[in-house]
Amino acid sequence: MKKRILSTQTQNQVGKIVKLSGWVHARRDHGKIIFIDLRDREGLVQIVFTPADKKLYKLADTLRPEWVIGVVGKVNKRPKGMENPNIETGIVEVEAKDLKVLSEAQTPPLSVDSPDIKASQASLQKRTDWRWIDLRRSKNRLIFEVWTTMEEAFRQYWINHGYIQIHSPKLMSTPSESGAELFEVPYFGKKAYLAQSPQFYKQMAMAAGFEKVFEVGPVFRANPSFTSRHDTEFTSYDMEISFIDSHEDVIKAEEEMLVQVLGKIKEKHGEKIEKLYKRKLTVPKIPFPRVTMKKAKELLAKVKVSHKREGDLSPEEERELSEIIFKREKHEFVFVTDYPTDVRPFYHMRLEKNPKLTKSFDLLWNGLEITTGAQREHRYKVLTKQAKEKGLSLKLIRHYLDFFKYGCPPHGGFGLGPTRMLMKVFHIDNVREVTFLYRGVKRLTP
Amino acid sequence: MKKRILSTQTQNQVGKIVKLSGWVHARRDHGKIIFIDLRDREGLVQIVFTPADKKLYKLADTLRPEWVIGVVGKVNKRPKGMENPNIETGIVEVEAKDLKVLSEAQTPPLSVDSPDIKASQASLQKRTDWRWIDLRRSKNRLIFEVWTTMEEAFRQYWINHGYIQIHSPKLMSTPSESGAELFEVPYFGKKAYLAQSPQFYKQMAMAAGFEKVFEVGPVFRANPSFTSRHDTEFTSYDMEISFIDSHEDVIKAEEEMLVQVLGKIKEKHGEKIEKLYKRKLTVPKIPFPRVTMKKAKELLAKVKVSHKREGDLSPEEERELSEIIFKREKHEFVFVTDYPTDVRPFYHMRLEKNPKLTKSFDLLWNGLEITTGAQREHRYKVLTKQAKEKGLSLKLIRHYLDFFKYGCPPHGGFGLGPTRMLMKVFHIDNVREVTFLYRGVKRLTP
Repeated sequence: MKKRILSTQTQNQVGKIVKLSGWVHARRDHGKIIFIDLRDREGLVQIVFTPADKKLYKLADTLRPEWVIGVVGKVNKRPKGMENPNIETGIVEVEAKDLKVLSEAQTPPLSVDSPDIKASQASLQKRTDWRWIDLRRSKNRLIFEVWTTMEEAFRQYWINHGYIQIHSPKLMSTPSESGAELFEVPYFGKKAYLAQSPQFYKQMAMAAGFEKVFEVGPVFRANPSFTSRHDTEFTSYDMEISFIDSHEDVIKAEEEMLVQVLGKIKEKHGEKIEKLYKRKLTVPKIPFPRVTMKKAKELLAKVKVSHKREGDLSPEEERELSEIIFKREKHEFVFVTDYPTDVRPFYHMRLEKNPKLTKSFDLLWNGLEITTGAQREHRYKVLTKQAKEKGLSLKLIRHYLDFFKYGCPPHGGFGLGPTRMLMKVFHIDNVREVTFLYRGVKRLTP
Repeated sequence: MKKRILSTQTQNQVGKIVKLSGWVHARRDHGKIIFIDLRDREGLVQIVFTPADKKLYKLADTLRPEWVIGVVGKVNKRPKGMENPNIETGIVEVEAKDLKVLSEAQTPPLSVDSPDIKASQASLQKRTDWRWIDLRRSKNRLIFEVWTTMEEAFRQYWINHGYIQIHSPKLMSTPSESGAELFEVPYFGKKAYLAQSPQFYKQMAMAAGFEKVFEVGPVFRANPSFTSRHDTEFTSYDMEISFIDSHEDVIKAEEEMLVQVLGKIKEKHGEKIEKLYKRKLTVPKIPFPRVTMKKAKELLAKVKVSHKREGDLSPEEERELSEIIFKREKHEFVFVTDYPTDVRPFYHMRLEKNPKLTKSFDLLWNGLEITTGAQREHRYKVLTKQAKEKGLSLKLIRHYLDFFKYGCPPHGGFGLGPTRMLMKVFHIDNVREVTFLYRGVKRLTP
């Protein structure tokens, strides 16, 4: 049996008999000749059926868009003047010798062979209903190829720096974050909660002496909002390291990671991203700009951007701040540091010189928060005191507090949202577009 | 500020002043001298405190097991005859010049500085209660170092072979497998289910033309059993590939993966696994043995192993079959193929020559099932018919069936349990020991 080749390989196989498989992307009939654009994961190639072989021609005549077929044929140079500059394989075509229908298709509710559908609210809804058809577009496919590269680049950083991977449980007996936006799960007569982050357990790994860990996994937020940035389930990248001197060690590690990750993405997909999304990726310079929250508020006051919440940034403020920093430093990233204790969870460590501020940070990329990080409070007594001050039930979080009773090193880490990264890689405004299958208040299917 | 070095690095630093951080693994007082075994992620090193520096000595005298400390000191060769052959750094010791207590510790409920605790049921319970302390043992830590290597080796295979990574949702509107053992989640006035596998969505990726995908993520089974092999949440490795000719293509891909993965584990951790677990890993030879279910039952009948279920293997039968194959072929693995339709889900493709059998397989490693795989039925009409035959509600699975309406290539894949792999790598009988944080009927903490 012949080994299948991919569409793009046909260019180097002129005169040879090859086997191809894929989707009927488009069909054109010119006189008696049937032209099929065959689509596989690499692109398109033209297949030609002539009436010379009657049986073959009759079968080819049944083909409709999105049918899946296997073809054996001879690769020919296209006649002069008949080349198609719009597709990579435009200088060749395949003269069909054999055809196998692998899957018939009903008329799809979305046309894959069309220019990009505008992301109007209505069509986004429809495209999400038929997500697997929408994903057939090469522009959409690229997002997940980049995700694969991005995740691997993060992992390579972690593995080369001696991190251990953990897979922490998503079923918990206590809420992992604030207690709000929680999914409850009936659990053998008891109640479990879906993890809102692996926070508690990556800290447990520090108490276990793992020293450096990372985790990639889903987190769940019963968030009732309908914004373009929110979903009820998403992937989170988390890391945590021990024996740090302050949150600055975490910031430095993140800078190194991002330079490596964006470098890899640019190297592997930069051209295609530019071609399909008109977005030219730049690899950021180290160090990234840093501003304290206090300074950020001063900068924003100067341009009269309203701030609703004291000591925290609204989405509008985040966008404005990034613009100010970009104008000043030509840098797409900015670390905002020294968040006040009242907008941060009880486990963030506080500054010695000003206990109203935390050793924490957010990272903004072109106006969007992609990371929250901090040094954690590892001292049992101080942590307990801070939990009490925030009005938390010590009984409810006692399993968490226990981690710090029997020796725990100073540590810190961050959580990063890969879909938010991808929104910025592609200049895409809606998280639904960069999620394989979006989950929201009204969206549990497909 | 001095950069911290790790315990094992002290051997090459004789005469130098170094900084070390870690746990007080053990303390011994000989006359006026305090000896501390400092434990970090690489191992142990002896720190010596003498009464010469009174302030330092006084602080050192407060140290107790599992306190976390930072030490600055001078590396000395140990006096002749005082070397400790039991630890890697046994030829040196560190004469303390400075000490910082980073975290005090209450007396831990488990002693880390002790020979392995026997895995009696009682102590396993206790060790699971205090999992983060139990994980401080180097023997336990090794499991997660190996897991990190193992997962990365699988990923390298997938990435080098053009697979795309997906993160499919764990919140679903319909059960992903049989409908049994399901966790229900109240979801904004509706009902969601936790994914029992990414099966439906990796198949959706095939309908989306992704052609080759992998996923690493948690799956959930509301399994009420208490066996040593079962848990309610575990990590699953899943892959799916398109344009296959039969399940044999999936089997071949898995063989290649496993050879690569076990090769990497052996290369990186083989010595340590042998030292700490007395287990000598061997990299299997391709092709792995294959037996049909029918043949397997014949082989088992010869050694009079009772079989309760027709066409499926009990755990006892799995062990026995692996032994038979190992005796005959000196191979630790065996693919069991051609399972009858009645023990396989409706979406497994059936053999053309015998529609009572499926194009499916399990992979056993030394008596434990680590993988289930199959070619899937991709033809909408046939799939619908098979679902009906199994008595499934077509309405309930209509979102799944829709994937096959608009063109879907022939495809197949497998799911593999990394904790089951690790049980076999280490010769560990209980899944609890190789899970970061085990979840079971009565276990939601820590």
